[in-house]
Amino acid sequence: MSLLAGVDVGGTKIQVVVTSPDLEVIGQSRGPTPAAGGPPAVVDALCALLDEARRQAGADGLAAIGVGAPGTIEKATGVVARSPNLAGWMDPFPLGPELERRTGARVGVDNDVHAGMLGELRLGAARGLRDVLGVWFGTGVGGAVVLDGALRSGPHGASGEIGHVCVRVGGRRCGCGRRGCLEAYAGRASMERRARRLMAEGRRTDLFRIMEHRGLDHLTSGVFARALAAGDDLAQDLIDEAVAAAGSGIASVVNVLDVEAVVIGGGLGTRLGEPFVARVAAAMQPHLFVTGAARVVPAALGDLAGALGGAAAAADLVTPVRRPARRRASGTG
Amino acid sequence: MSLLAGVDVGGTKIQVVVTSPDLEVIGQSRGPTPAAGGPPAVVDALCALLDEARRQAGADGLAAIGVGAPGTIEKATGVVARSPNLAGWMDPFPLGPELERRTGARVGVDNDVHAGMLGELRLGAARGLRDVLGVWFGTGVGGAVVLDGALRSGPHGASGEIGHVCVRVGGRRCGCGRRGCLEAYAGRASMERRARRLMAEGRRTDLFRIMEHRGLDHLTSGVFARALAAGDDLAQDLIDEAVAAAGSGIASVVNVLDVEAVVIGGGLGTRLGEPFVARVAAAMQPHLFVTGAARVVPAALGDLAGALGGAAAAADLVTPVRRPARRRASGTG
Repeated sequence: MSLLAGVDVGGTKIQVVVTSPDLEVIGQSRGPTPAAGGPPAVVDALCALLDEARRQAGADGLAAIGVGAPGTIEKATGVVARSPNLAGWMDPFPLGPELERRTGARVGVDNDVHAGMLGELRLGAARGLRDVLGVWFGTGVGGAVVLDGALRSGPHGASGEIGHVCVRVGGRRCGCGRRGCLEAYAGRASMERRARRLMAEGRRTDLFRIMEHRGLDHLTSGVFARALAAGDDLAQDLIDEAVAAAGSGIASVVNVLDVEAVVIGGGLGTRLGEPFVARVAAAMQPHLFVTGAARVVPAALGDLAGALGGAAAAADLVTPVRRPARRRASGTG
Repeated sequence: MSLLAGVDVGGTKIQVVVTSPDLEVIGQSRGPTPAAGGPPAVVDALCALLDEARRQAGADGLAAIGVGAPGTIEKATGVVARSPNLAGWMDPFPLGPELERRTGARVGVDNDVHAGMLGELRLGAARGLRDVLGVWFGTGVGGAVVLDGALRSGPHGASGEIGHVCVRVGGRRCGCGRRGCLEAYAGRASMERRARRLMAEGRRTDLFRIMEHRGLDHLTSGVFARALAAGDDLAQDLIDEAVAAAGSGIASVVNVLDVEAVVIGGGLGTRLGEPFVARVAAAMQPHLFVTGAARVVPAALGDLAGALGGAAAAADLVTPVRRPARRRASGTG
């Protein structure tokens, strides 16, 4: 039996699953992302975790491995060009080829949000759908586009950057240097910068007290969730702004793409859950050209979306992609 | 030989071409859009113009006809649901089936911007490209999306509505009732509403003098072009705002779709020409996630784009769509 593996490389942890050809999980492992040593240390950690999950599955080898990683990925070559969220990953590194050499398996590499969306498409919230926009709220805001049943890459491999849709010309400064990006309002890191500035200007908030109480050095999704639950005024304002920006930015993209559904995922999106998804859906409505055009649903696979998407991508490496039958009616297009 | 026809139904005129199967024009005709009589009068006018172009081509019959029309089109059925720019077209009318009955040819109907983009894709500025965004600046701002070599329709047939991308949350009121839409800044009708309001508030402009001098009752693209050439301050401000909104809105969509090129067309886009296209391209750059990601080019077919696109759609009705070979590299997606 040709077993597959999916790997989700995150800024703090690495998640691995080993699956049957039909994506049933039969082994998994999880470990911290090396904080030093750069790409070679990450490769060593990946190989150890792959071995662990493979042994758990009782398998001798793996047919293919799909990896989701943060940063700029050259899908065709498996090179991770830049990965600001992985310690010491400053220069392009051929992660795919190196893993192929070490494991003997075929390896594909894609960005983490695309991998997560593929997981949701094959096994999660977007199962059976053909036209879907994925929006991942985390440190930043990432996105992925599924059209006619296939994850879109694009000629520059840059499809899906919904975090850098401009929702306000000349608006708030984004981490990318531009102004008015959706991410500047709805990315966790931007929201933290905003909170620090407003607190420095005298605004009262429990956000940083909660952070310190939990021994953290930044405002995690959990900190935001707890502050919201406690009725923290600043946290509420930041989420209100994030929801308004998300409603406008996502609806704009839906107007151009015409999709059936929007899947909301990512660390912050998943942590804030259904109430956040419902608020984003409501904020989209005034901007939608076709009323109620797209269902808005939360991602269903949680922490495993990226690794399961990696396994789905691995399956595509060894067998042709199966797409659902075309539903488009005949016409002039 | 199976001849094809393409029809572009505009608010003021109807353009027809008759072509060979490889889209060479061998007959054409043009006439005014009936100002009274509703859909039946439009069908009569279409049939007369089709006969004229067909006789010019020396043909006995037509194999297929592709029609581009303004308004809300149900591609699958050929019904034009609503067409605010066609006089008396208040209720859904089965334009496709009625033309099939009258002509004996197969008929496909799509919206005018999609038809124009298909013309540019097969014969004009986007020839040979696979991933293109078309933006048509006219009375409103329309759009069309070509992905993997095919014009995208979408599950609601509503793909491409870039005019209703929100470029400023809570911004200027759009003709659609929403706020901050690209069309509210860059559509000819919105620009005229803005000009009338500013003039009423005492702002000086020659726009309406030029309009009256030419015996017109609204600010045509030509009026804007002439006022710009004469250095009219208000016209310049309106175009500046249109360019800024277009730069932001188009770049946002390019960030999500990742396309090779943006084609700028429509009455206003074509009339303002290269300088306008160059300014929109420059205004996009600060918002692009991948620097220089997409070339920005003017539409090449002018007034004939819609009719030629109709003929291309007619060709697709009688033969399978030929797409360029896939260039996408293998990967995890």
